[in-house]
Amino acid sequence: MKIAVLGTGMVGQALANRLSSLGHVVTVGTRDPQATLARTEPDGMGRPPYSVWAAERPDIRLATFADAAASAELVVNATSGFGAMPALEQAGAHTLAGKVLIDISNPLDFSKGFPPSLFVKDTDSLGEQIQRAFPDARVVKALNTLTANLMVNPKELGAESTVFIAGNHAEAKASVTDLLHSFGHSDVIDLGDISGARGTEMLLPVWLRLMGTLGTANFNFSIVR
Amino acid sequence: MKIAVLGTGMVGQALANRLSSLGHVVTVGTRDPQATLARTEPDGMGRPPYSVWAAERPDIRLATFADAAASAELVVNATSGFGAMPALEQAGAHTLAGKVLIDISNPLDFSKGFPPSLFVKDTDSLGEQIQRAFPDARVVKALNTLTANLMVNPKELGAESTVFIAGNHAEAKASVTDLLHSFGHSDVIDLGDISGARGTEMLLPVWLRLMGTLGTANFNFSIVR
Repeated sequence: MKIAVLGTGMVGQALANRLSSLGHVVTVGTRDPQATLARTEPDGMGRPPYSVWAAERPDIRLATFADAAASAELVVNATSGFGAMPALEQAGAHTLAGKVLIDISNPLDFSKGFPPSLFVKDTDSLGEQIQRAFPDARVVKALNTLTANLMVNPKELGAESTVFIAGNHAEAKASVTDLLHSFGHSDVIDLGDISGARGTEMLLPVWLRLMGTLGTANFNFSIVR
Repeated sequence: MKIAVLGTGMVGQALANRLSSLGHVVTVGTRDPQATLARTEPDGMGRPPYSVWAAERPDIRLATFADAAASAELVVNATSGFGAMPALEQAGAHTLAGKVLIDISNPLDFSKGFPPSLFVKDTDSLGEQIQRAFPDARVVKALNTLTANLMVNPKELGAESTVFIAGNHAEAKASVTDLLHSFGHSDVIDLGDISGARGTEMLLPVWLRLMGTLGTANFNFSIVR
């Protein structure tokens, strides 16, 4: 499948890499490709700049958000929470119309330091805001509840764990479930319509706390039943 | 140990019953014991009134919040979210001082129907509000992330799952951990100080959604790592 991954950070890279290795044609979207490639400093987490990562992956094209989305049958939003709406606006409502849009972003507000607060929660969610802003896209909230490498390689954990999907379009959720299965996810729980994103986005505070307590991001929720 | 369980609902009954069967001396606290015993109608969930339950458990005494707390070395708050502060005020700050106070309540606001919203969240929590209101009590947030029967009999699930504790007092958390082990919990994660309650209280939206999706409350989170 032709897939656009919007966002060049850790999540975008993990998704792009895995999708490409599964045989999909992947285009990564960014605001300004020249600026992204010109960065030579490690990021805030000490990881190498995008250009170093991209040099080893010549099959993965870098393009503007608009070009990437236009080239794709399915779009993955792997931006930060505050980055989501601007990126999708640049991708364009017309371009996104009718396409499956997997939203991985979380509404984290780090403006007052760590831990972040959530800039939308409880009675609304970022997933819902995106669906309302792009009513013709088929938004599926997914993969926002675990660290990037486990999103795409859940078997690294050695025991089964759970991922959640939420969205208004049954067919879109079926496509996303197939994709999740191809990553190795065997327990995918469908939380119903896109308002299910409230619950998964509100998992972030305990997720962040657990990361501190356990000293690692390599863990995941499992729903035992 | 002498233990007070504040609250006569499903959670209070489950805790009182299990603690009593483990050999503890249990007093259940309520606002008005005569009124509680006079109720003859099933509750909103169709469960029999407290008096029917209590008649089969003569070892479990019913008393006012104040009497129950005064009689106890350890206090369990098993009220509703809105009921927590009034119950603890009636128990009395002086009575609670120095005691371990296990807070199971969740800040659920059903005033606009189902699903409830959270009346405190993200940058504060009910656990923290209680600790601030009763600074000399040793508040430990625990057991607010699973259904009542699994709180006290987690092995019913057939696979290991996780419970969380959060509180400012290491010794109090050690006592609570012992109690949780005695219920059958083998994976107790200490989330640090009482602000860890934010994360566990914010699990409720996805918990409620999962209950609807799975058609049962008999499930629990497990942290796979």
